[in-house]
Amino acid sequence: MESYVYSNEIIKNSLKAMNLPKNVRIFDTTLRDGEQTPGVSLTPDEKIAIAEKLSEIGVSAIEAGFPVSSEGERESIKKIASLGLDCEICGLSRAVKKDIDVAIDCDVQSIHTFIATSPLHREYKLKMSKEQIIETLVKSIEYIKEHGITVEFSAEDATRTELEYLKEAYKNAVDAGADRINVPDTVGVMVPNSMKYLISELKKDIKVPISVHCHNDFGLGVSNSIAAVEAGALQVHCTVNGLGERAGNASLEETVMSLDMIYGIDTGIKTEMLTKLSKLVSHYTGIKTQPNKAIVGENSFAHESGIHAHGVLAHALTYEPIDPEIVGNRRRIVLGKHSGAHAIKSKLSEIGVEVGTSVSNEQFSEIVERIKSIGDKGKIVTDADVMAIAEDITKRTLKSQRIVDLEQFAVITGNNVIPTASVALKIKDQVYKKSEIGVGPVDAALKAIQAVVGEHIRLNEYSINAISGGTDAIAEVTVRLENHEKEVIAKATSDDVVRASVEAVIDGINKLME
Amino acid sequence: MESYVYSNEIIKNSLKAMNLPKNVRIFDTTLRDGEQTPGVSLTPDEKIAIAEKLSEIGVSAIEAGFPVSSEGERESIKKIASLGLDCEICGLSRAVKKDIDVAIDCDVQSIHTFIATSPLHREYKLKMSKEQIIETLVKSIEYIKEHGITVEFSAEDATRTELEYLKEAYKNAVDAGADRINVPDTVGVMVPNSMKYLISELKKDIKVPISVHCHNDFGLGVSNSIAAVEAGALQVHCTVNGLGERAGNASLEETVMSLDMIYGIDTGIKTEMLTKLSKLVSHYTGIKTQPNKAIVGENSFAHESGIHAHGVLAHALTYEPIDPEIVGNRRRIVLGKHSGAHAIKSKLSEIGVEVGTSVSNEQFSEIVERIKSIGDKGKIVTDADVMAIAEDITKRTLKSQRIVDLEQFAVITGNNVIPTASVALKIKDQVYKKSEIGVGPVDAALKAIQAVVGEHIRLNEYSINAISGGTDAIAEVTVRLENHEKEVIAKATSDDVVRASVEAVIDGINKLME
Repeated sequence: MESYVYSNEIIKNSLKAMNLPKNVRIFDTTLRDGEQTPGVSLTPDEKIAIAEKLSEIGVSAIEAGFPVSSEGERESIKKIASLGLDCEICGLSRAVKKDIDVAIDCDVQSIHTFIATSPLHREYKLKMSKEQIIETLVKSIEYIKEHGITVEFSAEDATRTELEYLKEAYKNAVDAGADRINVPDTVGVMVPNSMKYLISELKKDIKVPISVHCHNDFGLGVSNSIAAVEAGALQVHCTVNGLGERAGNASLEETVMSLDMIYGIDTGIKTEMLTKLSKLVSHYTGIKTQPNKAIVGENSFAHESGIHAHGVLAHALTYEPIDPEIVGNRRRIVLGKHSGAHAIKSKLSEIGVEVGTSVSNEQFSEIVERIKSIGDKGKIVTDADVMAIAEDITKRTLKSQRIVDLEQFAVITGNNVIPTASVALKIKDQVYKKSEIGVGPVDAALKAIQAVVGEHIRLNEYSINAISGGTDAIAEVTVRLENHEKEVIAKATSDDVVRASVEAVIDGINKLME
Repeated sequence: MESYVYSNEIIKNSLKAMNLPKNVRIFDTTLRDGEQTPGVSLTPDEKIAIAEKLSEIGVSAIEAGFPVSSEGERESIKKIASLGLDCEICGLSRAVKKDIDVAIDCDVQSIHTFIATSPLHREYKLKMSKEQIIETLVKSIEYIKEHGITVEFSAEDATRTELEYLKEAYKNAVDAGADRINVPDTVGVMVPNSMKYLISELKKDIKVPISVHCHNDFGLGVSNSIAAVEAGALQVHCTVNGLGERAGNASLEETVMSLDMIYGIDTGIKTEMLTKLSKLVSHYTGIKTQPNKAIVGENSFAHESGIHAHGVLAHALTYEPIDPEIVGNRRRIVLGKHSGAHAIKSKLSEIGVEVGTSVSNEQFSEIVERIKSIGDKGKIVTDADVMAIAEDITKRTLKSQRIVDLEQFAVITGNNVIPTASVALKIKDQVYKKSEIGVGPVDAALKAIQAVVGEHIRLNEYSINAISGGTDAIAEVTVRLENHEKEVIAKATSDDVVRASVEAVIDGINKLME
């Protein structure tokens, strides 16, 4: 065991007596648990695209879905199973013949079959006795094994089941032919030490590999998963971005990075693809991660406070546990009221203003004060603000001349109106005008701009930052534009969402043409 | 020790040998760490409003800010310290006389002073020897104690410091008069068992209360905090929604609920206020929680799959760890391709369509099929969809007559145009028309609607659900409207953000008038 986190004497001491596995299988359930996220629904094509990316990143198994739930679901699973991906393709089924039959029809390599064992589920959901449950699970496992398919068996709500009965259920499952047993913390009530205790207890009786499936109701899904590994679990279920019912499941990216970087356990995952995978899943599911989401969040490696930014500029690992490139993420220095002179100097240099040449040291002190005072007023300090302050203090134009300028635009929409926009853009002293229609006013405006600048500019991404407050709150629009040479990101904020969209695109076009 | 999570024999067994504290202090750092979240900046008024709510919910201490960082920061802290709140008000300071002096000037009851101890910070940031660091921290603590102020001392980056040197630093701090020591996992590299090991080691030598401060870089902040409590820590630092630099800090709501419901430890927090507190902080910081955020997320108690929804309808605790009311959150049943007949019947009944009377059993089976096939296409099934399907299948109008109907609307905006909107609303067979101007087209449209229906309807919240994809992606607008009697939430989706906003408001007005 070797940990890759910098200078970790304490971690090493605390883990050295543990008998940790060298490898852990990552069993991804994004296409099953993740898709059960309320409000999320993936098309077959989207499921296939995610499955391909999961295989590419190196997961050991993909639970492709729950075949009995719908016809579309079965088609997707069948398609994924036929792709010849480099990982096990699994289908979920209740311990019910009908479910198993449709799963078999999907040509999956393994079936994850489950029946609940806890008193609450026995009484209120299944209305079955302990004996009936064991009989049912045994029959189901034997039936799947008759078809020569790998079986993973879950005692649903295992963690709220009487320990002795749980052991009995799992022992019967193994005797019936289960190849692996999985321990679901169905409503996420475990803490790491209880999970460690439970897995250790089960290991006394169970000789097939043990897997865990942790929900995140108290925010402990990842820690419970790694506690299970400490006790000898060899497989962990997880989902990209921690998606799933309610508070979701253990997140793949956090689980993998904890096992890999802290414990030194190989998961087979190409970690540098994690941020891209997270974005792909956000895009298809429509569920964005919080900026402070660990590992893959927009802020996971962002620094604002003076002390942190100063530290990071001196040596990145002072305030970062690992290099962001390891997970395909990036470092950002953000300015605000907590910023110190080091971070502001670095930001000025980034936008082409050098202290000592473009601005004097006295002017620089003034810039620092002004930036902090914007922060004090509760405002976010953007690059454009920094430039405007620097220009104001030096009384000079520091900004390079923009190539495309917005002279005029107007849009109209309504319920008996075709959303229509007109723009007048100034490009190298000449004004060009165009109008276009669209599905909404923003779409129409952007089409009009594209009509002026030509087809070679593509809008790859458009997003409005969550607006809260009244309708006069600030909207932040981010666009990602591409031409034949490069891709740029541009942002603009306004209390008018249409205006913010137009300004972001104009800014992006200028960046593309630089 | 008693755990309140249902049927938890395994948890009880695993925790019974532990010598857990009866009470743990919650030291909230939302106004310091939370405000250092890149891109977040709170005005003094917002900081005061959050401080008042934190005191009301029952935190033991509030770190109100970092006085040296700016003039506005000092004003806010001074104001918060003067409010006479029912909790300790603390200010952060480096182990530097200048920082301590400005903190004292803010009239805080305690000062949290820190200096880094890890090799990386000693070499690259502080450029100080081990001895110089100890000398500095001793001098600073003594200086604060001379002013009769409570001192909490942190060895920054404690978890990456050599254990023996860390103990020496803390022992010197206690000898110099520190009232509490705090152990920051500055870059979030601990796992629960290492944290337990570290706190147990420190407890051998340190006789003042031990506190922990966990960052969340690997998603383990909450679990590391509770592991510290298992080892005898008596105070936990946390932030609302887990805000903070990078991946943020241990979240208050998850930490409190784990300690309270699983370990049975009293934190003094009024848990039923947690969801409201989370929303208040989201609102002021502009950082929304993910839907699958534990405890306070929009989906924390939402159910879509047939099995889960069926279970919850039979007995809520089958698929919920605790009742959502305990944390001030609510249960939601969401329809989609995973929905079963039970959930769909319950949703129909909710919108006033009873199976057996309004629709026949055969028609109901058809409705179920149609809802699942919408889900298969990757669409979210809204209440309006369910109603439209039911009406289509029964060939009858099931919907109650709407009181206010949108006859017509039009908006115009641009960069040389005052955003203007006109609406024609039909109220009880009479059409009313109005026009208004606003800061943007949405604002103008809503003002025009408000002008028609009268001033007694207030828009309390307006949000656009994260739109991703092209500009023709679907926007989901949510509004919260209030009149003198009640508050309602309404949603609408459209590829035109203005139209979605208008429709959501009209729908909300109808709900208010029902």
